[in-house]
Amino acid sequence: MPIDGIWDCYTTWNPSGGVMKSYRKELWFEVPTRRALLNITPKVEACLRESGIKEGLVLVNAMHITASVFINDDESGLHHDFEVWLEKLAPHEPVKQYRHNVGEDNADAHLKRQVMGREVLVAVTEGKLDFGPWEQIFYGEFDGRRKKRVLVKIIGE
Amino acid sequence: MPIDGIWDCYTTWNPSGGVMKSYRKELWFEVPTRRALLNITPKVEACLRESGIKEGLVLVNAMHITASVFINDDESGLHHDFEVWLEKLAPHEPVKQYRHNVGEDNADAHLKRQVMGREVLVAVTEGKLDFGPWEQIFYGEFDGRRKKRVLVKIIGE
Amino acid sequence: MPIDGIWDCYTTWNPSGGVMKSYRKELWFEVPTRRALLNITPKVEACLRESGIKEGLVLVNAMHITASVFINDDESGLHHDFEVWLEKLAPHEPVKQYRHNVGEDNADAHLKRQVMGREVLVAVTEGKLDFGPWEQIFYGEFDGRRKKRVLVKIIGE
Repeated sequence: MPIDGIWDCYTTWNPSGGVMKSYRKELWFEVPTRRALLNITPKVEACLRESGIKEGLVLVNAMHITASVFINDDESGLHHDFEVWLEKLAPHEPVKQYRHNVGEDNADAHLKRQVMGREVLVAVTEGKLDFGPWEQIFYGEFDGRRKKRVLVKIIGE
Repeated sequence: MPIDGIWDCYTTWNPSGGVMKSYRKELWFEVPTRRALLNITPKVEACLRESGIKEGLVLVNAMHITASVFINDDESGLHHDFEVWLEKLAPHEPVKQYRHNVGEDNADAHLKRQVMGREVLVAVTEGKLDFGPWEQIFYGEFDGRRKKRVLVKIIGE
Repeated sequence: MPIDGIWDCYTTWNPSGGVMKSYRKELWFEVPTRRALLNITPKVEACLRESGIKEGLVLVNAMHITASVFINDDESGLHHDFEVWLEKLAPHEPVKQYRHNVGEDNADAHLKRQVMGREVLVAVTEGKLDFGPWEQIFYGEFDGRRKKRVLVKIIGE
């Protein structure tokens, strides 16, 4: 084993290069509950196929500041654990603990979104999302019951 | 409503492509207090205009490890809530609770920056930051009273 | 001092542009403990040199959902503070507090990874990682004792 337990392998690259292409799509959601986690990986894969881009980067970001896009495991027990944990870190109640909650009650959603993140950036290699074995992209809704959007922007060649 | 409450729409793309351009600028700050949140969206928009890039990606990152760049709401009540919440998650006092604080007192700033994040990546579409209705870019200072920098790097065509 | 304490300087850009190149490498790890932080900056720098890319973006992401890639300080006291802090925010024990822990005991690792993040995106300028004075890239392992991977994807010209 080399120093630090680090191996290198599976290098691929395209040193000759090509022209840069771009692609954009909005995904719209209307979640019927205040909070929910939705696996949007198939939607992002469909965007990538439509774009025709083979090497590059896919940005997937929430366009709203009370929602997240993140990568983790598609396992219902874990999703329950996230719900309990986020409520402990940034509780919804009492709503009056937050100064933001004047005529609103979603301050906790703004905080939860910081823990879970706004965006993910995924490599595109040979026309596919370059993922490890369990990586799945989720839309994390923390203030639902209205229409909200996710942006998919792909840059590459 | 389709399965999962997901709609698709507003696809745009440039399959013919173009040459890839790059642009870089540093933004410097000297915040007079230990902690502050500054809306830097107009500065990033000015960089984008100067670059002339129409389709691509803007990376905005703190160049210091006790500061953040993040996207959330420009609302003073919420900013107060962030301050209270971050102090609860990673309190500044007592400074001696942190091993990092030998000759320094900013360990909490390193932790707060992890919650709020180092960087944001924003899509550029038709020469504009491709934002939802309330997205604004903030510089989050957690150990101020000295000069610090944010990097703006734009890649596109 | 201008409004908001913001200075601008050090603009560089390449408006003539060039063809877009891509590069990909996996870094493999086998950490002998459950948790560890490894500085992988020299490995990422070696990838960048090998790619020959001068202007662009480097994505470095964990390919596993119980590990992180993040940027912070290479200081052992701070690393101890991260360990204590993450155990407070998302404790490993008791393992039965998490529904995910059926035949597994790594739910806490999935939560810790959200706090520390999946990925970093670093600007490449004049063939170098465009870093502030103390920025270093870390692999954060939260469920080790098996082989896991980090992806390095570089896009640029």
